[in-house]
Amino acid sequence: MEELKASAANSSPLTPLGFLDRAATVYADTPSVIYNAVTFTWSHTRRRCLQLASSLSSLKISRGDVVSVLAPNIPATYELHFAIPFAGAILNVLNTRVNARTLSAVLRHAESKLVFVDIASREVALEALSLFQENNPHRPILILIEDDEVEPLTPSSTVHFEDTYEGLISKGDPNFKWLYPNSEWDPLRLNYTSGTTSSAPQGVVHSHRGTFVMTVDSLMDWAVQKQPVFLWTVKMFHANGWCFPWGIAAVGGTNICVRNFDAPSVFSLITRHRVTHMCASPVLLSMLSNENTSENMPLENPVHILTAGAPPPPAVIQRTESLGFIVSHGYGLTETGGVVVSCAWKGKWNHFPAEERARLKARQGVRTLLTAEVDVVTSAGESVKHDGVTLGEIVIRGSCVMLGYLKDPERTRNRLKNGYFYTGDVGVIYEDGYLEIKDRLNDVITSGGKIISSVEMESVLYMHPAVNEVAVVARPDEYCGQTPCAFVCLKEGMMVTEEEIIEHCKKNMATYMIPKTVAFREELPKSSTGKIKKTVLRQTAQEMGSITYQNLNNCSNES
Amino acid sequence: MEELKASAANSSPLTPLGFLDRAATVYADTPSVIYNAVTFTWSHTRRRCLQLASSLSSLKISRGDVVSVLAPNIPATYELHFAIPFAGAILNVLNTRVNARTLSAVLRHAESKLVFVDIASREVALEALSLFQENNPHRPILILIEDDEVEPLTPSSTVHFEDTYEGLISKGDPNFKWLYPNSEWDPLRLNYTSGTTSSAPQGVVHSHRGTFVMTVDSLMDWAVQKQPVFLWTVKMFHANGWCFPWGIAAVGGTNICVRNFDAPSVFSLITRHRVTHMCASPVLLSMLSNENTSENMPLENPVHILTAGAPPPPAVIQRTESLGFIVSHGYGLTETGGVVVSCAWKGKWNHFPAEERARLKARQGVRTLLTAEVDVVTSAGESVKHDGVTLGEIVIRGSCVMLGYLKDPERTRNRLKNGYFYTGDVGVIYEDGYLEIKDRLNDVITSGGKIISSVEMESVLYMHPAVNEVAVVARPDEYCGQTPCAFVCLKEGMMVTEEEIIEHCKKNMATYMIPKTVAFREELPKSSTGKIKKTVLRQTAQEMGSITYQNLNNCSNES
Repeated sequence: MEELKASAANSSPLTPLGFLDRAATVYADTPSVIYNAVTFTWSHTRRRCLQLASSLSSLKISRGDVVSVLAPNIPATYELHFAIPFAGAILNVLNTRVNARTLSAVLRHAESKLVFVDIASREVALEALSLFQENNPHRPILILIEDDEVEPLTPSSTVHFEDTYEGLISKGDPNFKWLYPNSEWDPLRLNYTSGTTSSAPQGVVHSHRGTFVMTVDSLMDWAVQKQPVFLWTVKMFHANGWCFPWGIAAVGGTNICVRNFDAPSVFSLITRHRVTHMCASPVLLSMLSNENTSENMPLENPVHILTAGAPPPPAVIQRTESLGFIVSHGYGLTETGGVVVSCAWKGKWNHFPAEERARLKARQGVRTLLTAEVDVVTSAGESVKHDGVTLGEIVIRGSCVMLGYLKDPERTRNRLKNGYFYTGDVGVIYEDGYLEIKDRLNDVITSGGKIISSVEMESVLYMHPAVNEVAVVARPDEYCGQTPCAFVCLKEGMMVTEEEIIEHCKKNMATYMIPKTVAFREELPKSSTGKIKKTVLRQTAQEMGSITYQNLNNCSNES
Repeated sequence: MEELKASAANSSPLTPLGFLDRAATVYADTPSVIYNAVTFTWSHTRRRCLQLASSLSSLKISRGDVVSVLAPNIPATYELHFAIPFAGAILNVLNTRVNARTLSAVLRHAESKLVFVDIASREVALEALSLFQENNPHRPILILIEDDEVEPLTPSSTVHFEDTYEGLISKGDPNFKWLYPNSEWDPLRLNYTSGTTSSAPQGVVHSHRGTFVMTVDSLMDWAVQKQPVFLWTVKMFHANGWCFPWGIAAVGGTNICVRNFDAPSVFSLITRHRVTHMCASPVLLSMLSNENTSENMPLENPVHILTAGAPPPPAVIQRTESLGFIVSHGYGLTETGGVVVSCAWKGKWNHFPAEERARLKARQGVRTLLTAEVDVVTSAGESVKHDGVTLGEIVIRGSCVMLGYLKDPERTRNRLKNGYFYTGDVGVIYEDGYLEIKDRLNDVITSGGKIISSVEMESVLYMHPAVNEVAVVARPDEYCGQTPCAFVCLKEGMMVTEEEIIEHCKKNMATYMIPKTVAFREELPKSSTGKIKKTVLRQTAQEMGSITYQNLNNCSNES
């Protein structure tokens, strides 16, 4: 048996790029991309992508170069998901909302060789380029994506652009042989994520293999049938629209591209194009469910909507479903390249009341089929009890996990360890094996190996009649690692002692959660948008140092 | 970018085994396997498989050992698709129709350590075992699978069995930790294929990765939704039922197991269990479509039927569809582990007349989504023209292709070469990119680099009014490699010359196909079932040697 090894016939690198070739055969003359008055077929799309790739090669773009895209969900952004890697290059779709300074920093970090710039982003792109020195050899080439919908550039301002998008297409060879990856572990895409604590750009790199698995997995998990009509309401710069650019080619669907949208335009596009599928953040769900005019309620045909990106409130799910949407709920991060946990629905739940159904659907759920493992672990790395209460960090193992962060081996080592990707999200697992997110790791208190949710403690403290505002953060501790420290703001004219607060906690929370420190404040530090600044309070608690113990005291002790 | 490599978090071996763990969470209390009066749930199935794997380990079965199964499509065979690899062993499901001598040869070749024997196959298994010497250390252990439906063994005849199937389950530990493959290239399954020319057993080995990709690919290609009801009409010993044992776990479906079946029982099972999906050879399609009694026509609900294994006649497809079946047509071989080409349906074909639809559906089609490449190539290795006429050998590249043949490096090298698996099937590609099988490579004539179908030549020769029977085989040729040689049997009382036959051919076939030799015979050699023995005729043609050329003559010459 040992002599039987991988060979050239069976070890062809896994990549999603070939999905377009197949779509151009099977779905040749059916619509691939629709945008306003323009409709392309799958034959067109493949031809245009090959022509683009050919022109990129002529511009000396080659294997391993990074090529960036600064554009919204227009046909060009869709096509570039194939065209850029067809030329052997690494796809880097950028957030169109960033300022010139951040954009310039990201382009430098990525060492981007060429940037496709949507006409609406030309000012920020030119400003970002001006931050490169004139003779800097790393200054990227700019290509302008024009659009009839957007006011054209005056002739003088095209001077900084090497060419236009359609110019590259018309110059390209439709018989170009696209570059197959040498290895399935070769990088295919680079996505920047802001992160919550650091302002340095974090470049997440995914391989061809990882993207292939994520693409197929998402189609399977959501049970997307052949030839769906997909409305592009999730940004392609968010983890490449959760891999659906490649997925829609795989199933020969129709991509409905939109530059901007609001709730009324979404409803009108659904009707006009008979949309069957769309992805959306809970915020969009909320917008849609508040837009229940007589015209759009209920929908003519059910629309499958996949929500992820943040935990959706059960009430929002319930309202959205009442309009005729079929909501699926998933969880993923830029580092997993798409949805890796989803709330797989059980038939027996259909008989539950709507409210209960929405509560169940608001849980993140179970690993998707092609994700090898998802677990919730304590700081000691042990799996938590499946009790719906014990907190731990969500960890993930599978082909979809990123290769790592670009030029940041330390961060890569911190997040990829013990055979898992550590998400930084804190959750619980219920008895039925479904998980739910409870907090961010930055906000929890790890005391004597137990993880305590600040969110949960705060909700108990808010129940006290004298409490106006509260924030719980970690205070360092020489024995327990950390202990919970509650900063409390009382209601005007109210008086209460530290002991009374602790007495209230003893009645309403598990012993190990009771705060060891209660610090009263006149007011809590806040951001301009009124959000309590936990970073400042964490710093204060840090400066307090450890509690002084009179006698050695077990952290999870009953006393 | 170079420092970003595969790591433990993202390089978890691809394997279909984990599908059962997920099914036991998501589909815990829904039916997994139904057989007569027995119904298991996915929780049961996982528990039973873990217990079996635990008992196999206790019997010293370990990584890399081969464990065989000699049983029809009963629950045990289904469960063993997980239980045997859970113990780290290689799954080897055997054809229940073989005789003791062949079985014994296969068990020796496979070095099988243990054989699960269905009660109906106990005689042949015991006879096969008796062909091993008493003290042969390679004599496998036998485990008996009992069945209420089949007459039980008398106590004395259980003596050769180490234990029973349910005995192993009851002794096993349900908390057994199943063995994850060390590498995704580790062998998962071994399947014996008789081949057409050789009587030596050919053991085809597939890896975990290949089987994973094939399983997912088949679900995607056939667009199998979640929780189908799957009727087991394809034998699990045929390339592991085209990977559907793992596939049905992936989608949490219900497996309807059957020991034996005929057309009426298939219709009755469809109604009783509300079957949604089944796989079938064209022979079964033919049986079903001839069984159109008033009770089963039309079906209450449409049933998806996937046919493969041989080219289905268009008329059979048409008749089957008229009963309410939705026929999908695929192509694969044991060496590809399942269906790798399928006749992906185009919406516009729905408007064609039924006969034309059936003709289009009878073509094998295009590569499935997860197959990297399928091509038809000349003997020089060049892709044929997409003209629906030029013949070539079908070659396949992709993860689904076998690792190779067990203990047969020469055969492995002959079939896995130039980066492809050479199927030995001859076909054409139409202008729309869809392929169709025309012949077996053994039966074609390769003349001057051109491949000539014997089937096609024979159909022209049969058009001649004097011809009673005809067979075309290859005659060796010093210049052209081979030339076509037609053995002709005339109708009683008819007289015709070689020149007249050739004149007839000139009018009705391409020049390069015209036979260089026409040999008249009183009768053609035939098998007991009346089939012309081409092997004998090939031998005769071989003995003729090359044609003697008067002047050098180009093989594909007009003369």
